[in-house]
Amino acid sequence: MTATVHSLAAARAPSLEPIVQLVAADLNRVNAVILERMQSQVALIPELAGHLIAGGGKRMRPMLTLACAALLDYQGARHHKLAAAVEFIHTATLLHDDVVDGSGLRRGKRTANLIWGNPASVLVGDFLFSRSFELMVEDGSLKVLRILSRASAIIAEGEVDQLTAQRRVETTEDHYLEIIAAKTAALFAAACRIAAVVAERDEAVEEALDAYGRNLGIAFQLVDDAIDYASDEGVMGKGVGDDFRDGKVTLPVILAYARGSEADRAFWKEAIAGGATDSDLARATALLSDTGARADTWERARLYGRRAIDALGPFPAGRAKAALVETVEFAIARAY
Amino acid sequence: MTATVHSLAAARAPSLEPIVQLVAADLNRVNAVILERMQSQVALIPELAGHLIAGGGKRMRPMLTLACAALLDYQGARHHKLAAAVEFIHTATLLHDDVVDGSGLRRGKRTANLIWGNPASVLVGDFLFSRSFELMVEDGSLKVLRILSRASAIIAEGEVDQLTAQRRVETTEDHYLEIIAAKTAALFAAACRIAAVVAERDEAVEEALDAYGRNLGIAFQLVDDAIDYASDEGVMGKGVGDDFRDGKVTLPVILAYARGSEADRAFWKEAIAGGATDSDLARATALLSDTGARADTWERARLYGRRAIDALGPFPAGRAKAALVETVEFAIARAY
Repeated sequence: MTATVHSLAAARAPSLEPIVQLVAADLNRVNAVILERMQSQVALIPELAGHLIAGGGKRMRPMLTLACAALLDYQGARHHKLAAAVEFIHTATLLHDDVVDGSGLRRGKRTANLIWGNPASVLVGDFLFSRSFELMVEDGSLKVLRILSRASAIIAEGEVDQLTAQRRVETTEDHYLEIIAAKTAALFAAACRIAAVVAERDEAVEEALDAYGRNLGIAFQLVDDAIDYASDEGVMGKGVGDDFRDGKVTLPVILAYARGSEADRAFWKEAIAGGATDSDLARATALLSDTGARADTWERARLYGRRAIDALGPFPAGRAKAALVETVEFAIARAY
Repeated sequence: MTATVHSLAAARAPSLEPIVQLVAADLNRVNAVILERMQSQVALIPELAGHLIAGGGKRMRPMLTLACAALLDYQGARHHKLAAAVEFIHTATLLHDDVVDGSGLRRGKRTANLIWGNPASVLVGDFLFSRSFELMVEDGSLKVLRILSRASAIIAEGEVDQLTAQRRVETTEDHYLEIIAAKTAALFAAACRIAAVVAERDEAVEEALDAYGRNLGIAFQLVDDAIDYASDEGVMGKGVGDDFRDGKVTLPVILAYARGSEADRAFWKEAIAGGATDSDLARATALLSDTGARADTWERARLYGRRAIDALGPFPAGRAKAALVETVEFAIARAY
């Protein structure tokens, strides 16, 4: 009987449910801060920000701050404001990303820049970014301010770096990993690390949570990259092949290019440089399978995922640790 | 003989020379910080940022921080890093402004967004903004962080507010003054106020310098608005009538609209809504003269300028105070 229950539990696909349950009460507090602090007498600001903030995001980063605080058995309330600050930085980044990419769809909804225009998206992003620093200043920890201002600068550097690499299929795997470590993983890492700061734990704990978040962030991004070549829009809320059509060089493409024949390389070069058609997408997807590029992108994501889980090694077993581990498993399982 | 010299001096047009001389040595230190801290291993960042930062800006805001510190006889070096932080916030704002306005010319040079594209301008702006907070964190004053994060949020709010008011000629004078108090004067005020913080002076000194900067900022912006309808491009580095062609509602237009005949109002409405031609610009300029709208914009600028000078009342006479006073006189004298 017990064995049956256990095997049923093991068969269940990894999900975000444990972390969602773990932080539910705290996340309500964070959402209240977010709603309160995105207000402005300039009506367009809450209108536009609300579209994205209320628009079905998972609140992944604030959940990580809250779950890491739970892991450390933190009993205070400082993490609510700081998790909101992290989400504001993330939202500002998304608003600017959609302008930079000229995106029209995010999480299955029309993007803010499509509805209100690029100027409004740029400026409301700036507002949310400033507001996030106001929240941190209210908390008053220079250490948190240092962590998050550094992460913000690294994110922007990573985004510019990616812009430079755009449409250059010769980008190396190492360079690409640098880019996503900056543009995606830095904020995951910072979101986790600040939990150690508010819980007043030592540098080793900070480092461990930073490593957890950083590796999880890379795993998330690599799986996202792989999904772009296989998912249906309903699941992801972005169009299949969006990265391909935008000439975005991601790890699956880098691996397929490296492993391809002369003819394949010529194909990738032209497609990524801007000549991609819908029939090209079919060929690209086939090449990603044939060369094992997509499977190996997933394999690398698993490697980073394992590192994230290993980083949690020193922490005591319990509900919080189990939720953080399953979050990694969920990140990796999404693709297949 | 003395009388002759005196009358020559009095006849000299007000200039920025006294403030430039006053802060020259400090400004070199600030420029060194700026150059050092705009570096990145992502080459496009210093390239793009350098275009604007080296591109002939007056460094008005950092000069104000330095001159106010001199007024308070501050002997330390903290203001160098903080003045650089202020300039980074300003530069980030300019980069985003040019994207928002679709500008092609600033200070007589092609804008960064025209050369490198909107995506790069948005992201390098984000980088400089993050870097400015890193500089403040290094200084370590939560009070300075509070002042500048608040100012940044207010600037963004003002920009969004102006976006909403764009092409709406019915914007009231009060509403317009709110907009420029936010988008222009808030950073002037903060640049001056932080000098009182580093010099560890009391709240009354902070308030006085804030009032000086705020009123100077408004005066500067109003004169800029007037100049757009009269200068030649060589002087200003922006095209005459740019605001008019962009459908920007500024104080000269608000006053001319309020004072105009039915026919005049219909003209303004259509022109600002987007139908402006070059012959319309001639008519607009004529209406601004005939209704006294341009002269009264200047008169209002003088009022704010006088308030700025009055705010310096409590401070001892001397070289710094004289330079700050002449900066106001310069701001107002530019138009005529």
